[in-house]
Amino acid sequence: MEKLTPPTRLLLGPGPSNVSQRVLDAMHLPLIGHLDPAFLEIMDSVQVQLRKLFGTQNSFTLPLSATGSAGMEACFVNLLEAGDRVVVGVNGVFGTRMCEVARRCGAEVTAVEAEWGTPLDPAKMLAAIESTQPQVVAFVHAETSTGVCQPVEEITRGAKAAGALTILDCVTSLAGIPLHIDEWQVDAVYSGTQKCLSCPPGLSPVSFSPQALERVAQRKTPVQSWYLDTSLLGSYYGGGKRAYHHTAPISAIYAIYEGLRIVEEEGMDSRSERHYKAAEALIAGLEPLGLSPLVEKKFRLPMLTTVQLPEALQGDPEAALRGKLLKEFNIEVGGGLGALAGKVWRIGLMGENAKLEKVEQLISVLRKVL
Amino acid sequence: MEKLTPPTRLLLGPGPSNVSQRVLDAMHLPLIGHLDPAFLEIMDSVQVQLRKLFGTQNSFTLPLSATGSAGMEACFVNLLEAGDRVVVGVNGVFGTRMCEVARRCGAEVTAVEAEWGTPLDPAKMLAAIESTQPQVVAFVHAETSTGVCQPVEEITRGAKAAGALTILDCVTSLAGIPLHIDEWQVDAVYSGTQKCLSCPPGLSPVSFSPQALERVAQRKTPVQSWYLDTSLLGSYYGGGKRAYHHTAPISAIYAIYEGLRIVEEEGMDSRSERHYKAAEALIAGLEPLGLSPLVEKKFRLPMLTTVQLPEALQGDPEAALRGKLLKEFNIEVGGGLGALAGKVWRIGLMGENAKLEKVEQLISVLRKVL
Repeated sequence: MEKLTPPTRLLLGPGPSNVSQRVLDAMHLPLIGHLDPAFLEIMDSVQVQLRKLFGTQNSFTLPLSATGSAGMEACFVNLLEAGDRVVVGVNGVFGTRMCEVARRCGAEVTAVEAEWGTPLDPAKMLAAIESTQPQVVAFVHAETSTGVCQPVEEITRGAKAAGALTILDCVTSLAGIPLHIDEWQVDAVYSGTQKCLSCPPGLSPVSFSPQALERVAQRKTPVQSWYLDTSLLGSYYGGGKRAYHHTAPISAIYAIYEGLRIVEEEGMDSRSERHYKAAEALIAGLEPLGLSPLVEKKFRLPMLTTVQLPEALQGDPEAALRGKLLKEFNIEVGGGLGALAGKVWRIGLMGENAKLEKVEQLISVLRKVL
Repeated sequence: MEKLTPPTRLLLGPGPSNVSQRVLDAMHLPLIGHLDPAFLEIMDSVQVQLRKLFGTQNSFTLPLSATGSAGMEACFVNLLEAGDRVVVGVNGVFGTRMCEVARRCGAEVTAVEAEWGTPLDPAKMLAAIESTQPQVVAFVHAETSTGVCQPVEEITRGAKAAGALTILDCVTSLAGIPLHIDEWQVDAVYSGTQKCLSCPPGLSPVSFSPQALERVAQRKTPVQSWYLDTSLLGSYYGGGKRAYHHTAPISAIYAIYEGLRIVEEEGMDSRSERHYKAAEALIAGLEPLGLSPLVEKKFRLPMLTTVQLPEALQGDPEAALRGKLLKEFNIEVGGGLGALAGKVWRIGLMGENAKLEKVEQLISVLRKVL
């Protein structure tokens, strides 16, 4: 095996984003044991800070030892039992994936669709809730496949009024824009570390409300995943005896600790403003080049902008151009998924990369190659 | 949040073990995207090298994006369907956990028990296979809770002859002693990175035989875990198009790459010999102090030695002494689990730590405190 020499890239795709030097330095620290009192203190701080970022008092708030997709799975496998009904909003890849994960729990899934690039229609969600009386209502806050930011409260309020628990995907929104999951009445939320937290991928911050945990406690059947069972995870992360469940990924926890520390220093309001300003500058720079945003302004995510390519660039030329950006200029941008493949780019300005100089770097290269 | 300053410890428990400077340096490298051709090359090398370490030609050999416990879950959820029968060898925590995971798949579990600290009796396993005609037979190669190394082939040969697939836990054995899973007729195997590979915890190397994948392809029901479904994982790790499934944990893959590179440089024979020599020295140093091995010599793991404490040290004094070792001498050793709690220590000499100087460091401290 040869010496490891990865290239240095500017990561402007849908994640991972670039990691700050401070986070890399944290991962360079020597390991300690996962039951070492010194490590448990670090974990406690991570949990405290994640609660702030999610906007929650939920005691059960922790970084799951797997990526964001496992966070999604954790929410569904804990809250659903075979035969339960679930209403899922579907306007992109991650809503589609939610349906698949819910079906694997034996649930009856009602998918409420909206065109990719547009938000879910709350009225349609509420009508489906009304007609199916589901145990769970799930949708995506920040659709990484389209760049849509979904207004949350009208849907969650309706779901809770109908007695359902609510699941929200905040993979791309956490640490980029303020979250208020308690105020929003969200019962289970999951995220990732490789987006606006600017840490490496590998952990999934999650939070479960007391009502969600109560539902788990009253299950008739065991949670189908041992690894993701909240009642077992609580024995390690829940304070008190800190019993062994699995071995927490020490270095990844160091990384998220430092990532959270950077967020705390900056403050979430400034950080969010920085994300909005960078997105604005990006769009202002792209429009003269013939690249226009897919999503209506009101529903645009600041950390992920989906832009439509001119017809001449769609299909094979799109892939070639993206390859050229990567190979010749060391800049990664994301392609489209599903029906949007070959037609759009997804440009991420997340965490460390939500800065005007990164926008300028991209725009100046695009001016050359377009 | 305060600056992160974990203490420097000598990690002689059941894992994590200390990580070499080279592995820490690898994690310090800048991130690239999980679909970047440069990253896919790194992943390819990791997969090639893992095949060598497992002793397999299995194409489906990869580092799962979660810890070893998720590797266990991956083996069971892919190979079992509700109503299937499984025979599990139980002589420690991890055999017990296998039963729990298998039950969550809806399987009928036949547990074949042996006293903790002793190996499974192949004749009893074969009798259970004969009488229940199971779809799957599962047991642990290296029981991290007791230090027993289980002879594999008599059981796997019997299982295969009866038409069952075989699952083997190699969490603690991989990269410490040679594995030959093809020769041993093992169909699904899982491991961890934080033991003899001396990488941080967070990945689970797994390998599935073609026959195991064939069983997955013929399932009547979908795999209950989307995250761990081998047919979906194959689309990213399987070569060819490298489709997005989940975001691979870049920095952890850098770490395992370097960990595997170190193993390749040393050679598995020398590495294994180093583990045996260190264990021998450990036992020679402990016996004059009144600490004797729990496991009969023939069945002892070299990387994890379970020693019985004199009666006067059992119970509360055991925990106090272990705490003193950690706090005053920065040495971590593991306590006992289950019925062995308070009665034994588990001393790991894994990967980086399987060296005579580490043994001497521990023994000289124990001479002081005992």
